[in-house]
Amino acid sequence: MALTVYGANASPFVRKVRVALAEKGVEYTLDQINPFAPPPEFLLISPLKRIPVLRDSDLPEPNTLPDSSIICDYLEQKYPNPPLYPKNAYQRARALWFEEYCDSVVATNIGGGLFFERIVKKLLRQQPDESVAQKTITEKLPPLFDYLNKEVSGREFVAGDAFSIADISIGTMFVNYAHAGETIDAGRWSELAKYIARVHARPSFKAVIDEESPMMRSLRAA
Amino acid sequence: MALTVYGANASPFVRKVRVALAEKGVEYTLDQINPFAPPPEFLLISPLKRIPVLRDSDLPEPNTLPDSSIICDYLEQKYPNPPLYPKNAYQRARALWFEEYCDSVVATNIGGGLFFERIVKKLLRQQPDESVAQKTITEKLPPLFDYLNKEVSGREFVAGDAFSIADISIGTMFVNYAHAGETIDAGRWSELAKYIARVHARPSFKAVIDEESPMMRSLRAA
Repeated sequence: MALTVYGANASPFVRKVRVALAEKGVEYTLDQINPFAPPPEFLLISPLKRIPVLRDSDLPEPNTLPDSSIICDYLEQKYPNPPLYPKNAYQRARALWFEEYCDSVVATNIGGGLFFERIVKKLLRQQPDESVAQKTITEKLPPLFDYLNKEVSGREFVAGDAFSIADISIGTMFVNYAHAGETIDAGRWSELAKYIARVHARPSFKAVIDEESPMMRSLRAA
Repeated sequence: MALTVYGANASPFVRKVRVALAEKGVEYTLDQINPFAPPPEFLLISPLKRIPVLRDSDLPEPNTLPDSSIICDYLEQKYPNPPLYPKNAYQRARALWFEEYCDSVVATNIGGGLFFERIVKKLLRQQPDESVAQKTITEKLPPLFDYLNKEVSGREFVAGDAFSIADISIGTMFVNYAHAGETIDAGRWSELAKYIARVHARPSFKAVIDEESPMMRSLRAA
């Protein structure tokens, strides 16, 4: 039994899997893959060219699984404790819904519109377009933050009565928001700001944030 | 206990949920929603503006769940028999992978590039662009069909030893392929062609195909 996560540590999807592994207390190795120039053999194990991919020597050849959502579901089957998916059918559906919401529209905007412009383009030696970042911040993200602020309001966890895949999925996107140099406006979205602060203070999140932040700070300053 | 599926019956995602319900023998009502001009209240129950949405009077207010993948997972929790997700952790992950593969890249090409051009645009009274359809057929789809052909080869079901959400997810996309007037080239993709014929012959698929086909034929002829 040896687990390897292939991915890049600034990816919100790679972080999602790493936080799930940490919450479950499972050891693994992180093997960095550049998603913009993956080795040719990577496409064989990730047909959609996505990171992360999990390698688990217990899996049939080629011992790998792609896609963060599928990897997290697999980890839940293999390491059921502590559970990261609510047992109640409605709360489970609610958790999967927030995972999907973040993996799609929140990722497109925080990951694509903001983090990609300000950070990834520097890594790729492309010219960042700050107008895209500004439009994302002023137009695209506010309705999403309104929705999330309402949904976390009055709740310790967004789905059910324990920390779940939903909290991981929301939390990981806001790590990239912070990496891009942004802070949630606590005057406008006070519940969301408090919720994200709680999620990011968990040891599972704090460890990856501490690991990633120095490089992100230098990239912002570059 | 009363279930309503909101959606349009030509949507591959609506069909995915209807086939899952039929396989589980669960009664429901289909309430047609035009996804291109949904009623304003629809956005409240489907923040990503997607169809289908499930209404189940057993759910907390507003009694609804969006997203075909989440709805199918919920149906599995509520109506576990017959199971539509493999019990084995690897086969389960494999099933979820084919669901994701179809819901993303296969949907983009069969649903977006082909079905949208040839059928949906007629419904919307827009001018179809046959060059987009041709490019999809000759360039975009062949690598996907190569992959699926290899993965179904020598298998009765694509994931595990029973019909699953993976077979539903692949099968539903090929209903739209047929609705757009296309047939799988059995010379080039013989295993895929046989597999899809088997899947579409199941009563759950046959019922929706028979229901949808007359209108699709008239749209193709229009």
